[in-house]
Amino acid sequence: MKVLCIGDIMGEPGRRAVARAVPRLVAQRQVDVVIGNGENVAGGFGITPELAEELFDMGLAVITTGNHAWDKKEALDYFSRQPRLLRPANYPAGVPGNGSVVVESAGGERLAVLQLMGRAYMPTIDCPFQTAKREVARLKRETLAVIVDMHAEATSEKMAMGHYLDGDVTAVVGTHTHVQTADEQILPKGTAYITDIGMTGPLHSVIGVKKELAIEKFLTAMPRRFEVASGPSVFCAVLVELDARLGKAIAMDRIRILD
Amino acid sequence: MKVLCIGDIMGEPGRRAVARAVPRLVAQRQVDVVIGNGENVAGGFGITPELAEELFDMGLAVITTGNHAWDKKEALDYFSRQPRLLRPANYPAGVPGNGSVVVESAGGERLAVLQLMGRAYMPTIDCPFQTAKREVARLKRETLAVIVDMHAEATSEKMAMGHYLDGDVTAVVGTHTHVQTADEQILPKGTAYITDIGMTGPLHSVIGVKKELAIEKFLTAMPRRFEVASGPSVFCAVLVELDARLGKAIAMDRIRILD
Amino acid sequence: MKVLCIGDIMGEPGRRAVARAVPRLVAQRQVDVVIGNGENVAGGFGITPELAEELFDMGLAVITTGNHAWDKKEALDYFSRQPRLLRPANYPAGVPGNGSVVVESAGGERLAVLQLMGRAYMPTIDCPFQTAKREVARLKRETLAVIVDMHAEATSEKMAMGHYLDGDVTAVVGTHTHVQTADEQILPKGTAYITDIGMTGPLHSVIGVKKELAIEKFLTAMPRRFEVASGPSVFCAVLVELDARLGKAIAMDRIRILD
Amino acid sequence: MKVLCIGDIMGEPGRRAVARAVPRLVAQRQVDVVIGNGENVAGGFGITPELAEELFDMGLAVITTGNHAWDKKEALDYFSRQPRLLRPANYPAGVPGNGSVVVESAGGERLAVLQLMGRAYMPTIDCPFQTAKREVARLKRETLAVIVDMHAEATSEKMAMGHYLDGDVTAVVGTHTHVQTADEQILPKGTAYITDIGMTGPLHSVIGVKKELAIEKFLTAMPRRFEVASGPSVFCAVLVELDARLGKAIAMDRIRILD
Ligand SMILES: [Fe+2]
Ligand SMILES: [Fe+2]
Ligand SMILES: [Fe+2]
Ligand SMILES: [Fe+2]
Ligand SMILES: [Fe+2]
Ligand SMILES: [Fe+2]
Ligand SMILES: [Fe+2]
Ligand SMILES: [Fe+2]
Repeated sequence: MKVLCIGDIMGEPGRRAVARAVPRLVAQRQVDVVIGNGENVAGGFGITPELAEELFDMGLAVITTGNHAWDKKEALDYFSRQPRLLRPANYPAGVPGNGSVVVESAGGERLAVLQLMGRAYMPTIDCPFQTAKREVARLKRETLAVIVDMHAEATSEKMAMGHYLDGDVTAVVGTHTHVQTADEQILPKGTAYITDIGMTGPLHSVIGVKKELAIEKFLTAMPRRFEVASGPSVFCAVLVELDARLGKAIAMDRIRILD
Repeated sequence: MKVLCIGDIMGEPGRRAVARAVPRLVAQRQVDVVIGNGENVAGGFGITPELAEELFDMGLAVITTGNHAWDKKEALDYFSRQPRLLRPANYPAGVPGNGSVVVESAGGERLAVLQLMGRAYMPTIDCPFQTAKREVARLKRETLAVIVDMHAEATSEKMAMGHYLDGDVTAVVGTHTHVQTADEQILPKGTAYITDIGMTGPLHSVIGVKKELAIEKFLTAMPRRFEVASGPSVFCAVLVELDARLGKAIAMDRIRILD
Repeated sequence: MKVLCIGDIMGEPGRRAVARAVPRLVAQRQVDVVIGNGENVAGGFGITPELAEELFDMGLAVITTGNHAWDKKEALDYFSRQPRLLRPANYPAGVPGNGSVVVESAGGERLAVLQLMGRAYMPTIDCPFQTAKREVARLKRETLAVIVDMHAEATSEKMAMGHYLDGDVTAVVGTHTHVQTADEQILPKGTAYITDIGMTGPLHSVIGVKKELAIEKFLTAMPRRFEVASGPSVFCAVLVELDARLGKAIAMDRIRILD
Repeated sequence: MKVLCIGDIMGEPGRRAVARAVPRLVAQRQVDVVIGNGENVAGGFGITPELAEELFDMGLAVITTGNHAWDKKEALDYFSRQPRLLRPANYPAGVPGNGSVVVESAGGERLAVLQLMGRAYMPTIDCPFQTAKREVARLKRETLAVIVDMHAEATSEKMAMGHYLDGDVTAVVGTHTHVQTADEQILPKGTAYITDIGMTGPLHSVIGVKKELAIEKFLTAMPRRFEVASGPSVFCAVLVELDARLGKAIAMDRIRILD
């Protein structure tokens, strides 16, 4: 089974880059399942039901999110209704939505996707490590093919999660920093890992935002309404090849396509 | 001129990787100047005069540091005496040491190295952007070839600095997260840029630390004495090719060598 | 000279409490100048020109603010036009508004008010200590009576400022935490000091916010639109008695009035 | 039943102030049980078995701690052995020590003490609110008299805890900021509350630390070995009067004694 995992999709430029790249990659590389992080599709802040449907229509089977999950109030109900739109599983009990889902490929193989969020420099929620152990055990009763989206800021927390789940899950892929890392690898016990898949969105920007606005924010510390940048885009993803029956990663390929 | 910039060198494994890789790269790729980040050479925490000399002997012309600059008390005086050992230039007035230096290549070309540190999730010091403008203007009276080590956690602050100095300096290279990013590029106005060069140190680790200790820290939130991991190493660097007379970047090559 | 310093005034309940308490206190205690922190008067978030005028009409000579200064866009211009509405002086160069002002009492005595903001767990701006030394020296050319509003979260940063300016200014009064502290004192070199004046606003609340909303925020980590609580109010202030000619504090009285 | 709750006891000056004040207060005010926060008794950083015994000998029945619980390695075992030395109950499973204890007064009445720690600007541990509900329910099977030490930085998190447990426990008393607040009150449903009891330790200091060292730290952002200040002390506590059978608070008196 081949799973294409797309990093944080940023606004309209990000959605367009997905629309262009996904069909081509699916065809060329025999992709079975596509997942992507949609926490920034709505103008950089959150996701709406319409935009989620648009991404599903482009071929995404599962959309993960993160700290921006709740930016659009109109999505709150939708999180409860749409099991393939995930929010971090380590949000406390009572928070709407689901943190994991099991989907099936066209070939009938099952893939579990689990979303976690780190806590270093991030919202203070339940422990992602405790949640991971519990949720992975539960999901593995349904399938051994488990991909974890670890949405976090600190490289240390993401790498710790990779090693913590090494041998237990198929892959741990990081999101949130909007910059692709070059450390894709198969960890010692067999789990595929990358610290951050990177953003899919405008290239000449500050993590997707118009650079002038971001710079001004750092210079003045005053609140600034951020806007998604324009210009050429970058599409960032990893392709995870795995044995779905054993849940074992075979390879992780890093993908970075400029317009 | 070709400048090899090495990312955070982690403990003894990092120093060994430098000793192995630098002579080979200098010879094979005609490197003129080598610089590297030494904030973690002393068992992961700081630097000592002896270890700095060891790195200079291995061919480093300039050592940059960061938030770990002050971990070893025995280095405090040395920072004041050794102009080629830098600490972030945006530490407030009165802090020992220097934030920039101009060195000369064997061919007689001058290169300025400026060290800055971000403030997002980092120690609260003077503004790196204000400091950058002032220091870059000063350094450019000596040479137009200026490389900036932007030691920071947040990808947004590093990219903002890249764009802020774009066209003004030769290159902005990020350090501190210990994970190499895959976004090396020439920015629109000509400055070479990478968000993080990545760590030089033990591969199977959590940013250089023994993974068991790092995981336990995340699971318990209790203080833990960290130890540098062992096993195979990774050497992370970028090679910046530049026109020293014009201060213009020609190319940035990302280097990641596994043992 | 007697100066009444009111803590963070929270929404409509806070404004009503000011309207009730100030005339009575001015009369009973022969208050010469009234100042107050207005960063939360507009429904808990920021200040508008209309609400600032309302506070000036109630007898405030100077309004200080803090991290909420910029919450209302309609106030941005007003900060530049109205010299008696302050924002922290240690915002970087280029930020609109003023960080200090000199006013005159009915009796013709001059009082300088300087606003600073701490950086621990707060927006990352210029150093309040460096700014304090520079601004205090400048203001003391106009009058020796100087009151500093140190808007900060960490008790350590506020106490450090108190001792840093001890003997140099008349009083350092803390704001921002919305809870009055019981440590009013004359520091060893003569400066009057309190860590926090406390909030003027709804008593049965979480720092002025409806308690149910605040609790839910802690339980879920989801964004919540905060609303100002209702019910009985508390009025928090300190009365600083000083020798305006010498700039020396004579006494600091803590005031906490329940509806 | 009358319970004397002492705030963070800072170093040797704090211990001496306890030794002086406690016997007198116990006698004069008929105190039944004394508890105190001991996280800073060992030179400002943590607690040792010897110093804990010293405090027990001075009459403390229970010692609470907080983020500094683990500063002294020699106390790790002792936390497991001594049930009357508490660490926050919301540390994750597997962490040594206990987060609550039930003690008996000389008159045979039982009092439960529960220690929690906030997470805003503090170590990232389990949710104090979830833990509170679970632990309070458990403790109330043993006694209805329950005092909660909420060790936290943010006033909002402490007030939210007060209201969250209002009517459920006898008292919620805050510690950690080292500055006594003036907001002692009986909340609407009957729980006694104060945001911070305040430090017991050297008065002319920055939260107990030598002021010169604290100021230098803010000015330079360099690591500084902190030392406990000397000079006159302040003793901070609250006296909670309660009906032990009903678990109802009758009164909370704030105590602040200068040398
Ligand atoms: Fe994102
Ligand atoms: Fe995110
Ligand atoms: Fe480092
Ligand atoms: Fe660093
Ligand atoms: Fe406020
Ligand atoms: Fe504030
Ligand atoms: Fe403490
Ligand atoms: Fe503490």
